[in-house]
Amino acid sequence: MKAISIGLLGLGTVGSGVVQIIESHQDKLMHQVGCSISIKKILVNDMTKERLVAVDKGMLTDNPEDILSNPEIDVVIEVMGGIEETRGYLMEAIKNKKHIVTANKDLMALYGPELLELATENQCDLFYEASVAGGIPILRGLVDGLSSDRITKMMGIVNGTTNFILTKMSKEGRAYDDVLKEAQELGFAEADPTADVGGLDAARKMAILSTLGFSMNIGLNDVEVQGITEISEEDLRYSKKLGYTMKLIGVASRAGDRVEVSVQPALLPEAHPLASVNNEYNAVYVYGEAVGETMFYGPGAGSLPTATAVVSDMVTVIKNMRLGVNGRSAVSPQFRNN
Amino acid sequence: MKAISIGLLGLGTVGSGVVQIIESHQDKLMHQVGCSISIKKILVNDMTKERLVAVDKGMLTDNPEDILSNPEIDVVIEVMGGIEETRGYLMEAIKNKKHIVTANKDLMALYGPELLELATENQCDLFYEASVAGGIPILRGLVDGLSSDRITKMMGIVNGTTNFILTKMSKEGRAYDDVLKEAQELGFAEADPTADVGGLDAARKMAILSTLGFSMNIGLNDVEVQGITEISEEDLRYSKKLGYTMKLIGVASRAGDRVEVSVQPALLPEAHPLASVNNEYNAVYVYGEAVGETMFYGPGAGSLPTATAVVSDMVTVIKNMRLGVNGRSAVSPQFRNN
Repeated sequence: MKAISIGLLGLGTVGSGVVQIIESHQDKLMHQVGCSISIKKILVNDMTKERLVAVDKGMLTDNPEDILSNPEIDVVIEVMGGIEETRGYLMEAIKNKKHIVTANKDLMALYGPELLELATENQCDLFYEASVAGGIPILRGLVDGLSSDRITKMMGIVNGTTNFILTKMSKEGRAYDDVLKEAQELGFAEADPTADVGGLDAARKMAILSTLGFSMNIGLNDVEVQGITEISEEDLRYSKKLGYTMKLIGVASRAGDRVEVSVQPALLPEAHPLASVNNEYNAVYVYGEAVGETMFYGPGAGSLPTATAVVSDMVTVIKNMRLGVNGRSAVSPQFRNN
Repeated sequence: MKAISIGLLGLGTVGSGVVQIIESHQDKLMHQVGCSISIKKILVNDMTKERLVAVDKGMLTDNPEDILSNPEIDVVIEVMGGIEETRGYLMEAIKNKKHIVTANKDLMALYGPELLELATENQCDLFYEASVAGGIPILRGLVDGLSSDRITKMMGIVNGTTNFILTKMSKEGRAYDDVLKEAQELGFAEADPTADVGGLDAARKMAILSTLGFSMNIGLNDVEVQGITEISEEDLRYSKKLGYTMKLIGVASRAGDRVEVSVQPALLPEAHPLASVNNEYNAVYVYGEAVGETMFYGPGAGSLPTATAVVSDMVTVIKNMRLGVNGRSAVSPQFRNN
């Protein structure tokens, strides 16, 4: 089989991890997909900027058309973030018959169903494992591993930033502002942390998780959201005294024919398995009628963990290309209508 | 697409769960695979025995040929256990172009590579998610979710019986023999518990896990095994005093070009995530070069949890039948030669 050419949209934290893994694991990847894989073009904003990984300057471009309408490129990996412009890019790429791997939860929470429909129409794959809980293969777990079960409830710590902040506040008795500043310095929180601390980021992930887990289209508006900005170190001290741990928890559960989804700070008994998920780690608890309780735990963000999910999705796309089953692969973790 | 016919080998604990899930989740299953699924024949030892689930007596047979060489049957689900005879049955079924789903770790640890090769030759699927850690989709996690990563270490609590015994001994200060008896009464331990308490059962699962995780054929003889029969309640009392928890841990790790695999009682610090995996629950920790640490947690045995894994595998087989990619599906969790 001919070599597979990748176009990368974005070369920030996750993009650099993708370049690193494709290069350093080339042997394992070739062994799995049966052909070589090379990154042909990388879309960046600023061609002159210093990069986190060494890349051939000739690969960089600031013209999206070099990727989106480049007939040489088979798979587009989107790790640039953003919503409206990015959506346009992916729609164009799909219409040009390119398979897509994305790590973009903002985009998938808003436009997932539409993009997946377009991909299916064009016999293209669209995978997005990295969009929820970074390195944890939770979407595959829901779609493949638990495909025979009826999921009744999911509970997740799906935002690393707030989990880092709450862990530090609780374990070290420090104030919210103080820990937020440290998180920003360490790169666990962004300069504008509103989406994380306000609960919006977790809400987006819960929308994606519940759409998949309950086979219904759950939008952001269906999620009740409360963040951690009102939590004081005193709240944490008292809850600790009573044997509880405060976590920002996303809960999605069936209530009759309806599904209720919320994100809010919640007190967990210290013996609860989610109570010991600390710092930037994520975990998703899944309750199935038959399986009972299962949990998936791992790093919720970070360059290499997130890139692992992206490159694993890419491997699935290339395997599907070999089998000729893209875009109709029934094992894709894809949104399904009810 | 025509209805899919299943032949079931065995109607014990797991077999009854399979019947129950296929019946009670028929709608979800049809929605996923696009056709109806029915169990045609069930092989049992004793046609007159009282069963755990209500089945049409006409489905029961004590003649394996009614399934293995029945042209109507598409998929054979093996939940009867046993090694040599069962191996013969599955080989015959595969030669008759039937796809296989098995929950049999004893068989897969010994004859996995051979059976998988035969299945590939015959363009048949052979899936065995249920053979390790019951309801936890760990094999898929290794093969698909972490496909792009290089796994360096796995640590698992993969035997529910011993974990139940150690948990009770530790939390209730009771003696080994006493707890073993309770476990037998509750159905968590067999009348002859040797394979569980001696570590053999865990060793078989570690052989399967490391064969997949490290892409090498790891046999039972490659696993160093020590069970829990020598553990006294005093050992547990002392370790508890020192802040440790005793668990029967399977460890598989790379050491240069080699892989070392062992099963033995080990002391874990109480804060270690595996230390809080209690009773009959299982968990597998996976360390990957890029992803860091991830953990998969859930019920390690039991009728419905194990049957969930079996039926989810069956769903994948039927999806593959629709796509025409059985036996060469690159996403199968299959043993690969190094």
